[in-house]
Amino acid sequence: MFKRILYPTDFSNSAGAALEYVKKLREAGAEEVVLLHVYDERNIDLYWEIEASYKEEPPEQVKHEIVKKMLGKSYGKLKGIEKELQQAGLKTKLIVVEGVPYEEIVKVAKDENVSLIVMGSHGERGFVERLLGSTTARVMRESPVPVLVVRPKDRKEGGR
Amino acid sequence: MFKRILYPTDFSNSAGAALEYVKKLREAGAEEVVLLHVYDERNIDLYWEIEASYKEEPPEQVKHEIVKKMLGKSYGKLKGIEKELQQAGLKTKLIVVEGVPYEEIVKVAKDENVSLIVMGSHGERGFVERLLGSTTARVMRESPVPVLVVRPKDRKEGGR
Repeated sequence: MFKRILYPTDFSNSAGAALEYVKKLREAGAEEVVLLHVYDERNIDLYWEIEASYKEEPPEQVKHEIVKKMLGKSYGKLKGIEKELQQAGLKTKLIVVEGVPYEEIVKVAKDENVSLIVMGSHGERGFVERLLGSTTARVMRESPVPVLVVRPKDRKEGGR
Repeated sequence: MFKRILYPTDFSNSAGAALEYVKKLREAGAEEVVLLHVYDERNIDLYWEIEASYKEEPPEQVKHEIVKKMLGKSYGKLKGIEKELQQAGLKTKLIVVEGVPYEEIVKVAKDENVSLIVMGSHGERGFVERLLGSTTARVMRESPVPVLVVRPKDRKEGGR
């Protein structure tokens, strides 16, 4: 029932705790992990115009360059995580996209026909996240499949 | 890794979807389910004084009687669910308590040494719940173990 799992990561501590759990799901029958990072387009919207203001290139070009650079960085990090998963005996598929995290996570869960999403209890929260509620909470509300939420161990029990 | 699971239920549709999932976890290695219902003391606080106002018994006695009746009702419902779980090949332990649901769920998870909590994405929400956020969200923040959240199938995809 866990053959194909979606593991979205924003590279936070919380996502790291979820990664350790994903590896252990091998013993519960997991075979393949769809490894996803969504570069949050809302973060860049808050600052790309500033960067564009002191560059001589057209603003759209500046934005495009930033996104390309960030996606490249994310891809590098994902490759490291992919290796860990493979060493744990799991097959992997790697996806990096730009967008609104909870929307892309729900979309990939549907498109990739996974049976479970495993994610951290809270990610790196930007301004928009604090207003709208965490990505995890929104995924929970809209996911077509169950969501397994993992809290990092280093947080105090009973804490916020 | 899922040998002993905590399944808290408020008897909502959402909890019903989680129940179906718990049964299936048998194939992933689940052996025993701690079946918990928390009678929400905050709900009764909102109306027991009204009921007391037209009865001749002392108010505390009225409150006690209501809680006793509600716990008895809950116990009856839990026995039905227990039977379903046993038919699915799972051992069970049944707990009914009065309290604040998220607090009791986290407490039982610790006391009973479970490795996973499986629950619905949203329960029957009273006034207090709407102010403070759902029980599921609060359990997620304070649970000592991962929380597997199941959304009922009849909700529209992409809905709230």
